[in-house]
Amino acid sequence: MEYAVIMAGGLGTRLWPLSRQGFPKQLLPVCKGKSLLQLSFERLLSVVPAERIYVCTAEAHRKVVGENLPQLPAANILGEPQGRDTANAVGFPAAILHKRDPDAVFAVVTADHVIEPIETFQACVRQAFNVTKEHPKCLVTFGIVPTFGHTGLGYIQRGEPMSDDHGAYQVLAFKEKPDKPTADRYVESGRFYWNSGMFVWRADTVLEQLAAYLPQSYQGLTKIAEAWDTPQQQEVVSEIYPHLPKISIDYAVMEPAAQQKSVVVVEMPIDWIDVGSYPALAETLSIDEHDNAVDCDRLIAMDADGNIIVSRDPNHLVSVVGVSEMIIIHTPDVTMICPKNDAQRVKELVAKVREKYGDQYL
Amino acid sequence: MEYAVIMAGGLGTRLWPLSRQGFPKQLLPVCKGKSLLQLSFERLLSVVPAERIYVCTAEAHRKVVGENLPQLPAANILGEPQGRDTANAVGFPAAILHKRDPDAVFAVVTADHVIEPIETFQACVRQAFNVTKEHPKCLVTFGIVPTFGHTGLGYIQRGEPMSDDHGAYQVLAFKEKPDKPTADRYVESGRFYWNSGMFVWRADTVLEQLAAYLPQSYQGLTKIAEAWDTPQQQEVVSEIYPHLPKISIDYAVMEPAAQQKSVVVVEMPIDWIDVGSYPALAETLSIDEHDNAVDCDRLIAMDADGNIIVSRDPNHLVSVVGVSEMIIIHTPDVTMICPKNDAQRVKELVAKVREKYGDQYL
Repeated sequence: MEYAVIMAGGLGTRLWPLSRQGFPKQLLPVCKGKSLLQLSFERLLSVVPAERIYVCTAEAHRKVVGENLPQLPAANILGEPQGRDTANAVGFPAAILHKRDPDAVFAVVTADHVIEPIETFQACVRQAFNVTKEHPKCLVTFGIVPTFGHTGLGYIQRGEPMSDDHGAYQVLAFKEKPDKPTADRYVESGRFYWNSGMFVWRADTVLEQLAAYLPQSYQGLTKIAEAWDTPQQQEVVSEIYPHLPKISIDYAVMEPAAQQKSVVVVEMPIDWIDVGSYPALAETLSIDEHDNAVDCDRLIAMDADGNIIVSRDPNHLVSVVGVSEMIIIHTPDVTMICPKNDAQRVKELVAKVREKYGDQYL
Repeated sequence: MEYAVIMAGGLGTRLWPLSRQGFPKQLLPVCKGKSLLQLSFERLLSVVPAERIYVCTAEAHRKVVGENLPQLPAANILGEPQGRDTANAVGFPAAILHKRDPDAVFAVVTADHVIEPIETFQACVRQAFNVTKEHPKCLVTFGIVPTFGHTGLGYIQRGEPMSDDHGAYQVLAFKEKPDKPTADRYVESGRFYWNSGMFVWRADTVLEQLAAYLPQSYQGLTKIAEAWDTPQQQEVVSEIYPHLPKISIDYAVMEPAAQQKSVVVVEMPIDWIDVGSYPALAETLSIDEHDNAVDCDRLIAMDADGNIIVSRDPNHLVSVVGVSEMIIIHTPDVTMICPKNDAQRVKELVAKVREKYGDQYL
């Protein structure tokens, strides 16, 4: 049977104070009141039914994730007691799905992006499921067609097209985040994709790969799966999971597997908006006639241009005059102000807040 | 007997959202937790005792003024049902004091400024009281020794020194706010003072002047005084006061009286900080090593220079990164942000807030 697993592990520090330790960025309303997680869930519904969608998230977020996705069966939310990077975040559901359905094949999708058009995304996922039918030992990844030489993303270098399918190619190599000239060369060549961090594979196949390349994780996850759906479930996962080797699936499995010619990339020609920082979040907001991206019930803005203004307190008035290109975020307990050009520094700011006030505002 | 009347009528719109309709700027804590009104009251205490200090304020502020000055007898707070400019704001206490003490002589002082040194201020007020003993028909005003060619203030042109006292001069003329070259010429000449809006006079003398130059006010205020301290007090003041002619004491009395050589100016060599806008308020706050003027319990400021940051919510965290020369004000119901250079525009902002939300945030 076909399944989908939504990865919802990140905290989204660069969206603080909207995202919090107890309220990760995937739960932020970004599009007509819907969260990234809800958008991700809805995107999958025409490909697999709700009861075969899983979410892998932090144990601490299991409850809020369940509230955000009332259609999702509670048993389908897998809580990581501690983040151990993506090798385990995908291996964990692989082990659970394989226990529940030895014939399981599943898509791994992220909840960090707004994706358009949805239909293209869905067609690509269906196509990837088809690839795994023909090639059950394959690891399928998705390559986003790049629109510019992004230096903050990894790249996938494609090789020969698969004879039996359109838009699917052998993967020659995974490339780390490049410098700008290299990134530009990648894009010009037409033979590189942005690494989406999304995959489709059979559960048994990815477990075999983990057994080969990351045996410690494989053994730990196997023990967790044995205890799963028994009264020992929580005890075992809490004991084992924090000791799994912390490593990404790209390093641990995809790169060596690509050298073995076991990886296929399906081209995904979508608009892919990473809502990881305020300028990106702004692209999901309504824009006023002065180029302000606004999500604020009560606002007076005079001679204010190109700002990002978000308030999470419906009765609080935000008022600005003569302010340009600033990020202004208001929540009941925190106000955060920084120029758009410094959006990446919110992370440093959060570190300072932790240093001075502990977890109170995080 | 000698009295003092503190004028506390203004709203301080340019200090919104710290100042409010129900909480005028004179009540804002500006100096070690003390309000301008408290500072003004304490400055007077060595000149006249608390029971002979009066406050003239908006009727709507009588209660908060009383709370701010617990030492002040309730009967000494005179509430104007409506602002009718300074001619009535000084005529009103003149009429009440004259009824209670026909021999009353009183100082009119403002509560808009931080004044230093206090001892100089006190010595000048005492000296002015002495002038009225020698010259009971005189109107005494105070002239601040100007430090630069301020174009936002009126000026007092002095004439010959009074033969019998140091630092007191006949007033030749009151001058309106000048243009910059004129202001500079005034300062250079050494014969002009900033018009302080503070006075000393006998109650009967200023009432005579009002009778001569503003008979409508004189008659109205006389009727109010007749009803004062009787059960009809509120009814009569509410009926008459709003119809008094709205005009400043300078236009109505001081300018014509100066032409009659009835006005004396006492030189007041003080530092006179008008706390009417945020940059001025900032001068009363503590300054950190990055030149930020701060009154905010919970603050993280990274690469932030020359800002004014005030919060009135002790648990709310204000966090800024890469922000310079901005005014950031946070209260439980309003956040206000504007560049220091636009501090004067807060008034416009308040007008917009009124237009969109009525009085809710004012």
